Amino acid sequence: MRTAYHEQLDAFDGALVEMTRLVGAAMTSATESILDADLGKAEAVIRGDDAIDAVAADLEDQSMQLVALQAPVATDLRVLMSGLRISASLERMGDLAVHVAKATRLRYPASAVPAELREVIIEMGHVAERIVERTGEVLANRDVPGAAGLAVIDDEMDRLHREMFAIVLSPMWTYGVEAAIDATLISRYYERFADHAVTIGKRVIHIVTGEPYNAGLVD
Amino acid sequence: MRTAYHEQLDAFDGALVEMTRLVGAAMTSATESILDADLGKAEAVIRGDDAIDAVAADLEDQSMQLVALQAPVATDLRVLMSGLRISASLERMGDLAVHVAKATRLRYPASAVPAELREVIIEMGHVAERIVERTGEVLANRDVPGAAGLAVIDDEMDRLHREMFAIVLSPMWTYGVEAAIDATLISRYYERFADHAVTIGKRVIHIVTGEPYNAGLVD
Repeated sequence: MRTAYHEQLDAFDGALVEMTRLVGAAMTSATESILDADLGKAEAVIRGDDAIDAVAADLEDQSMQLVALQAPVATDLRVLMSGLRISASLERMGDLAVHVAKATRLRYPASAVPAELREVIIEMGHVAERIVERTGEVLANRDVPGAAGLAVIDDEMDRLHREMFAIVLSPMWTYGVEAAIDATLISRYYERFADHAVTIGKRVIHIVTGEPYNAGLVD
Repeated sequence: MRTAYHEQLDAFDGALVEMTRLVGAAMTSATESILDADLGKAEAVIRGDDAIDAVAADLEDQSMQLVALQAPVATDLRVLMSGLRISASLERMGDLAVHVAKATRLRYPASAVPAELREVIIEMGHVAERIVERTGEVLANRDVPGAAGLAVIDDEMDRLHREMFAIVLSPMWTYGVEAAIDATLISRYYERFADHAVTIGKRVIHIVTGEPYNAGLVD
């Protein structure tokens, strides 16, 4: 029989999955805003971050109450304590989408992305969508092989990050220092977004197996 | 009378303070490595990060065990659950020191810092030292006004971050795009280092007052 306690635990898990959907949608809109120099879309991402922060704050309350009232042990305790940190990673992924949107706003009505970089930003946007969607599935199913597989998608992001540097540093780059700085920071936001997904995957592995979480492997 | 449980809680707090000392020392060495193009110092910072990660992993174990065995409530529970996230911030601050050290290594035997940027990097290093030292005091004393004061030190870091952009974008900048990208990333590592200190301050306020933690204010 399902108890109220187990329903609350399920709701906690469900809210984490919902957060992956919210930050995924935020990053998709942020990517569109920067590719199209779309100020309205950028502003919507920036405003929308409050909703993501609110879910994170609510998850923190829930986990504190469940730990205090139910004194969970073993897997349930790991779900709640690791869930807190997963929520912190997701909240930060939302912030990174906001940073991309703010780059759009900073250069509007000009574009923050010269034509030479469009393709790499489009690909980074796709990889960000893929990794956050997989992260949601990994969380929903406590999928350990899937969690380990997030690192493979992250490798793709790292490759794109290096490609962006190669473009900006090539003799063909005619946009000067400011555009290079914009590109560096935007690219780093996508790279960090994917890093956080990998961190979440490691937390899921910890929840399922009880093996110690190893932060060192992430950097 | 002090119980073994309270001694464990004190040890948990003490380990967090010790982590501030470790990441502070790492950032100080990283700053010296980048100013002096000192490869040995950079390598020591990179190697030393394992010790910081080990303290973080140990804190995670301790908090799980204390929560599972002692079923703490109210402030004690907040200390343990917020402590987990404080430890994650400190671990990340250690990573940022490593990133600075890796910038040293990447450009060695050349310097990653042109003469025009020396002064701003020296100041960023000082602000990083100050904010992490204050963070240790705030943690040790659960100092709420001190915690709020970390944002003032962070403002100083943000000012230096903007100053760095002004130098790199001025017509006097003759070092080209690659040096500008290095400077952008290095400066961002210091800026994020200080952001994490502010986040820790907010967590300390949450521990003391029980008021909800507000992530939104940090970004």
